[in-house]
This record gives sequence, C-alpha cells and structure tokens, in this order.
Amino acid sequence: MTGDRSASAPPSDEVDFVSGRTRVYGIVGDPIEQVRSPEMITAEFVRRGIDALMIPVHVRPADFDACLAQLKRVQNLDGLVFTIPYKRTAVALADDIGDHARTIGAINALARRPRGRWVGDIFDGMGCVEAFRRRGYAIRGQRLMLIGAGGAGAAIGIAMAHEHPRSMRLFDIDPQRAADLAVSIRTVDASIDVNVGEPVTTGIDILLNASPVGMLTDPRTPVDISAIEPQVIVFDAIVKPEPTKLLSLAQTRGCRTVFGREMMRGQISKIVDFFSAGATDAV
Amino acid sequence: MTGDRSASAPPSDEVDFVSGRTRVYGIVGDPIEQVRSPEMITAEFVRRGIDALMIPVHVRPADFDACLAQLKRVQNLDGLVFTIPYKRTAVALADDIGDHARTIGAINALARRPRGRWVGDIFDGMGCVEAFRRRGYAIRGQRLMLIGAGGAGAAIGIAMAHEHPRSMRLFDIDPQRAADLAVSIRTVDASIDVNVGEPVTTGIDILLNASPVGMLTDPRTPVDISAIEPQVIVFDAIVKPEPTKLLSLAQTRGCRTVFGREMMRGQISKIVDFFSAGATDAV
Repeated sequence: MTGDRSASAPPSDEVDFVSGRTRVYGIVGDPIEQVRSPEMITAEFVRRGIDALMIPVHVRPADFDACLAQLKRVQNLDGLVFTIPYKRTAVALADDIGDHARTIGAINALARRPRGRWVGDIFDGMGCVEAFRRRGYAIRGQRLMLIGAGGAGAAIGIAMAHEHPRSMRLFDIDPQRAADLAVSIRTVDASIDVNVGEPVTTGIDILLNASPVGMLTDPRTPVDISAIEPQVIVFDAIVKPEPTKLLSLAQTRGCRTVFGREMMRGQISKIVDFFSAGATDAV
Repeated sequence: MTGDRSASAPPSDEVDFVSGRTRVYGIVGDPIEQVRSPEMITAEFVRRGIDALMIPVHVRPADFDACLAQLKRVQNLDGLVFTIPYKRTAVALADDIGDHARTIGAINALARRPRGRWVGDIFDGMGCVEAFRRRGYAIRGQRLMLIGAGGAGAAIGIAMAHEHPRSMRLFDIDPQRAADLAVSIRTVDASIDVNVGEPVTTGIDILLNASPVGMLTDPRTPVDISAIEPQVIVFDAIVKPEPTKLLSLAQTRGCRTVFGREMMRGQISKIVDFFSAGATDAV
C-alpha cells in the first residue's frame, strides 16, 4: 500500500500500487494516449517511496477552464503536468510561476502548496540541464550551438542560459523564432554572446538538437557533422529512434553524447522534486 | 502497459500498471483514506485483463455538484463509485438508474455509456446475493431473518427480495426503519411474507446480519444463536473481525456461513461487470 514493494505480497484480491491513501497526480492533454508521464513519473514516485501515482487526464479544449478549476478542488490531487495543447493556457491556473516559465510564457507542471496556493513552472529545459549535470558535463563558460527554437528548443535555450554559457548560436528554419529566443536569452543573462545563424560544428563545445530533424524514420541529421571535433558534446532531444543518426555519427567521431531519454529522466526527476517541495495542505 | 502482467518486465524507469491508454475510474467520498475500492476494484480489472485503475477522489460536500459535473467531462474517466456521504446525492448525476437504486433512492456506481449517457445503480445488496450464488446457496423460496435495516441492511433486503424468498422477517433497533424497509420490499415482490419483529433463529433458513453489532471489539452477537439449527445458513456483513463472533459460533453449531468479505468480492465483481457492460463513447 506504500512505496515499500519488498513487503509481503498483498492478498490476491488487492493490488499494492493504489489505495485510499494514495496521492493523485494527473497529466492533462488532448490527445492523451501517447503520453509517457503516467508510467515514468509514477516509477519515480515508487523509487522514492512516495505513495502517489500519475494518471492520464484527457480534457477537451472547450472543457479546459471549467474542468481544471474543479480538478484543483479534488483534495487528494496534489499536482498536474500539462502537455499539448495546454502548456500556455495552464499559466492562468497558477498563483505563482517560476523564472523559466515566466520567460517562456508556459508551464508544464502545477503543484499544490500550503493554504491552497498552486505554483507552476516548466521543466523541459531543466531536464536537459539535469542530464548534463548527471554526466558531469559543464555548461558554464562553454560555447553552445542550439538547433531548433520551437517549444522544446526555447525551453532548452532558456534553461541553458540560466547556466551561464559563454556563447549561444541559435538556428531555426524560422529565423524570427530564433531571433525571438535570442531576445529572451539576453533577458536571462545579458553577458552571454548570443547570435542567430546557420548551424555549425566548429568553434563550439556543445551541440544541441531540439529540432524534429532525425525523428522516427527521417534519415537526415540537423547539421553536417562530418567535420566535428571529438571534444564537442552532442545532445539530441529526440527519443525515437534511440540513438538518432546524429548521436550515432557523433559517437563514431569520438564525441561524448547525451540522449533524449536522459533529458526525459532529468525532467521527471525535477518535476517530482517540484511536486515534493512543499507540504500539501488541501483546502 | 496492458493487463498482461506476464509480459517481460518494463524498463526500471517505467511502471507497468498505468500509461496514457489506461482508462480511469474513481471512488468519490469524504473522507477517502479508509476506502478499499482502489486496491480491490483495480485488482479485478487486472484479473480480467482490463487496462484500467480506480483512484481515490476526495471531494468536499460544498464542491460535490460542480466538481462531479466536470469529472464527467474527463474523456478517459469511465466510471465512479460513491461512498459516504454521497450515495443519495449521486442519484442526480445519472441519466438513468437501475431498479435497486430506484427502490433504495441511492446509487454507489455510475458508468459512462455511449453517447454521453451515465447510468447508476447500487451494488451493496447484489454483492450479498452474488456471494450466496457463488456458494450455491438458494434464496428463492427460503425463509429469511434480516437484522439491521440501515443503509447496508436496506440494500441487502431489497436485493434479497429480488430473489423471491418465501418470507422475510426484519428487525432494527429503530422499528420505523424496519417498517419502512418492509414497505419497500413489498413493492419489489408483493408475494413475499414480510414482517417486522424481534430477531429469531427458529423457523428460518437464512440469518442475515447487517447491523453493526459484533463489529471490531464489540463482543456481542446481534441475536442469541445458542439454539440455532445446523441447517440455517448464517451471513454477516461485517468484515472486521473476520470471522465475527456470530459466524464463529454458527460454525461451532454446524451451520454453513457466508462472510462479509464474500459480499465485498461479490459486489466488486458486479460493479466491474456494470462498468464493462457498455462500450464507452466519451463526448
């Protein structure tokens, strides 16, 4: 009934992963079937011995405002994760939001805090930073190339900026999107040398792909890495296929790599930290 | 990710009992921590290979109407169970209710049906009937003594009446409550010989205890069974202690017995049948 799975088996007419005391979390999206947070965030709760689980919550856009207002009134529901298409809309549900969320204008997690307050933040980019931290790869003072300035790219760019790299070069197929992200990055840390331009693999320490190029059966790489130096660290946010062609080629060139799944794990860890940070006090 | 637990183990960063495709059910009550439906109904889903789970949903009375209206709008939520204090209030959430629920004026389960319809029924008493059926003990034509005409007693009395016993003698410490139940029973089957009176163990085939006498550390029995004949079948709705003193003494006298836990199992099976009866078609 608790997170201790080593205890004796329960009677066959009971499962051991949910009870009346289990705290409930939900991931809200439309559609919902493709999400991975229920099995991954619940696994993180289990690993930490927290009696909680995350369920999928499929809410249609027309129902979002009224439905979410009431979900927040469910006394044993302590937090929500938001996915497509709700990351921006969900900002309105928070009484307070974190720095990354404020810069990006979106949240992907909302947590109940004492006295009925709800706080929100966005963890996509923090997950990438966490993945680098776990590998022991420094970001401070490094020269970054970021490909892709959409939702994931902006989140990664902002989170990386908070780690104070020396420079950041941004590329997006939509130049305006890259330019907008450059502005946001300068508001985080004006000392970073930010510029917008074509993707390169020279004169950088870290290559970050947050574009969809290379996803699934796409045989391309987001940049030609035939001349990449082996001291460059290569990250790809894509989780399918694993490894992507970009990561596979980078490894052939002798580069160290960080996988999309490591960012996912880092994000999940950060979200569960966030959910666990404040004692709940339902009202 | 599905009900098939015999498949190979998932990666350690995922659990196998919830995913984006899992259908969600909830038990709604205030308080909620003491409920047993999450672990027991989820176990029944698992046993049947249904990818679904039941979570606890703690809703305060002041929030009930608005909150439940919105929970019904969650597209992957297919059913709800209601416990104290909501069994009567929940009737208003159903577009249609079953015969037992109509007689009793309460529901304890609500299921989504095609085209956004919600149907409700009450299964407490049906669980008792199911327990007898599983044991192979006939009710039709038998002479029953029912002790306790409160919530559980009324549900058991009505469900038993639907099985057409020959006679039913009712006792409650509140004589009016027993008299009211007698009236309801006659509406179910006017041919049953119903009467209200003190508890007896003679001239009966089945003794049913639905009173709280004998619960937990209460050392009493709800009726003196020192003279009970061994052909009488004795049922006790109480699940703690197990067996109750009533059941233990009955066994000593050579009587066959039906345990409260068997009624719980019967009810759970009936509720999952009910949830599974109509293809869902969320709107």
